[in-house]
Amino acid sequence: MPDNDPLLETFKHTAYQVSGHGRRQVHILKDAMAEEDGKRDADIYGQGQIIEDFQDKIADYLGKESAVFFPSGTMAQQIALRIWCDRKSLNKVAYHPLCHLEIHEENGLKELHHIEPILLADKDRLIELADVVDMPDQVAVLLLELPQREIGGQLPDFGTLEAISAFCRTNGIKLHLDGARLFEVLPYYQKTAAEVCALFDSVYVSFYKGIGAIAGAMLAGPKDFIAEAKVWKRRHGGDLISLYPYILTADHFFDQRVGKMAQYYADAQTLAALFNGCHGVWTEPLIPVSNMFHVHFDFPKETVQSLLEDLYRTTGIGLTGTLREQGRNECSFEVSVGDQYQNIPQEKLSQMFELLNSRLPLLP
Amino acid sequence: MPDNDPLLETFKHTAYQVSGHGRRQVHILKDAMAEEDGKRDADIYGQGQIIEDFQDKIADYLGKESAVFFPSGTMAQQIALRIWCDRKSLNKVAYHPLCHLEIHEENGLKELHHIEPILLADKDRLIELADVVDMPDQVAVLLLELPQREIGGQLPDFGTLEAISAFCRTNGIKLHLDGARLFEVLPYYQKTAAEVCALFDSVYVSFYKGIGAIAGAMLAGPKDFIAEAKVWKRRHGGDLISLYPYILTADHFFDQRVGKMAQYYADAQTLAALFNGCHGVWTEPLIPVSNMFHVHFDFPKETVQSLLEDLYRTTGIGLTGTLREQGRNECSFEVSVGDQYQNIPQEKLSQMFELLNSRLPLLP
Repeated sequence: MPDNDPLLETFKHTAYQVSGHGRRQVHILKDAMAEEDGKRDADIYGQGQIIEDFQDKIADYLGKESAVFFPSGTMAQQIALRIWCDRKSLNKVAYHPLCHLEIHEENGLKELHHIEPILLADKDRLIELADVVDMPDQVAVLLLELPQREIGGQLPDFGTLEAISAFCRTNGIKLHLDGARLFEVLPYYQKTAAEVCALFDSVYVSFYKGIGAIAGAMLAGPKDFIAEAKVWKRRHGGDLISLYPYILTADHFFDQRVGKMAQYYADAQTLAALFNGCHGVWTEPLIPVSNMFHVHFDFPKETVQSLLEDLYRTTGIGLTGTLREQGRNECSFEVSVGDQYQNIPQEKLSQMFELLNSRLPLLP
Repeated sequence: MPDNDPLLETFKHTAYQVSGHGRRQVHILKDAMAEEDGKRDADIYGQGQIIEDFQDKIADYLGKESAVFFPSGTMAQQIALRIWCDRKSLNKVAYHPLCHLEIHEENGLKELHHIEPILLADKDRLIELADVVDMPDQVAVLLLELPQREIGGQLPDFGTLEAISAFCRTNGIKLHLDGARLFEVLPYYQKTAAEVCALFDSVYVSFYKGIGAIAGAMLAGPKDFIAEAKVWKRRHGGDLISLYPYILTADHFFDQRVGKMAQYYADAQTLAALFNGCHGVWTEPLIPVSNMFHVHFDFPKETVQSLLEDLYRTTGIGLTGTLREQGRNECSFEVSVGDQYQNIPQEKLSQMFELLNSRLPLLP
């Protein structure tokens, strides 16, 4: 890590942190492997009990016919969109302007698949039914991300989802779910994963966000769709001879954490309220709908940064290791509540927020 | 595994096996992790000490400016060819008809990168200088695989390599090395990896053949080439948040086995001679030039299969778990000598070959 990042350095030395499950270190793999006797056969090019059992387990959980494990969501989602486009002989998809494929994948969808995205809605709000109904172009598939991560993890209400899904079915548009944080939104919807996924033709979920494994993703959908996805997985270079290091950890932490999402969600609401009680600080969404939200400071990045460094040293509680500048007089960071939140003594947390709130008005 | 594969089942229950480093089981990961205290930070999206140190180490070993770790060779090689093609604005490459990209990747090179391959030489022989000089089309890059795996792991002599390299440089053709088994051929050439790689503009090596790790590959070349490869790695979905499970095992087994290639090579020569001493059996190459060769039986697959099953049960030594049919009256399998060969008591091995040789003439 660079020496010139004192916020990150100070953050790393805090005793408690409000986000996540802990530092990403090699022990995550060691922990997951501890119960393994080592005698199980490796998966070989997509075959074998380790991979097949986990694919079946997650397909079942998502209420889909079939599923295939991918090393990354980037690969899984490009392939999902490609298959739906090929089937309709139409290389157009619709998604949010801050969709992962649009801003984090170096234009893989365009460079590798020659698929053109239609951006729906404004950057700072969710896709609504009207955006879909009024789409200027025909598309083969619409991608919805639940929750919309880049705007703090916002969610449409379930009725909107149902209406969009119904419209897509009537109009021959496939609906794909970017469910990178699907597990995390189920407590808000009060639905099972299968109930949410029933609205979608294909679904991707990730195992290193709320689940906290190392890497890896699952793509689920109809049998013939998944069979095609496996061919594309080979083409992309994702059909590794063995994927078990990721599968074993994903499976281990799925069992450990998928039942804890309601706790993370409740904790996120409590924590967001604490932030919102501070002068010049607000969260997006105001009341979280999952374990995640964004924290905004109505102050310049540099001043917040020194304040936080000092706060971490004084209280031993870390809020974030990085701040994102948002114009000259605002900055923000992301919170994803995980196992670590419950480790913080309630009293220490209250004291930290009191201290933060007492210092903020002094900022220039 | 299917119940209907008695050869594979019997093979798996043998006490000794002539090929490989042992069964691909989860203990490979556990063994490599045993010395880890777990406190090292994970690599994050291509950054961090674990990935950067290993990339530098292998770049150094290969005598190249820079290197990037990939989850798979499929991904690494398509990307290498794509970059060279883009630089020349010419979507044509030349390689052997049995090149990995041509027969094992579901046409990824064509489907994702729209690159057209020119197939050089006949299927059953190596690419020679004349094939390159007489190429019918202009190409951006020529790929050579050392050794040519699908024809038993044959190798051109070093002079031929030098001549092809010189011709390519003079004629503005980039030369890429498919070095999936590069470590394994160095004892034959009596060259360092850097001496061989100096003839090539870019090089891919694999860590799960002779090295025997779980999966993973390295692509090495000039700095600007590797910087571009990292962008494409993101596009392909290969820039996983963390690749350390593969990197740690690759590094562990690289150190353990890269110095043993001369032993594997010598053992392969001894073993091939034993096969060639049997009635109706021959190896390709006749005298191996690496740790690998193919064994051909001039008998139908079904009859060889029952003979081998019986042989495995009687002697406890396994030769192969799968036979490839080659026309009606021939079958073959691949041998890659690794750590397991040295475990077989010499006397047991001789007895096994005597038994094999005494039974072969009785085949129909």
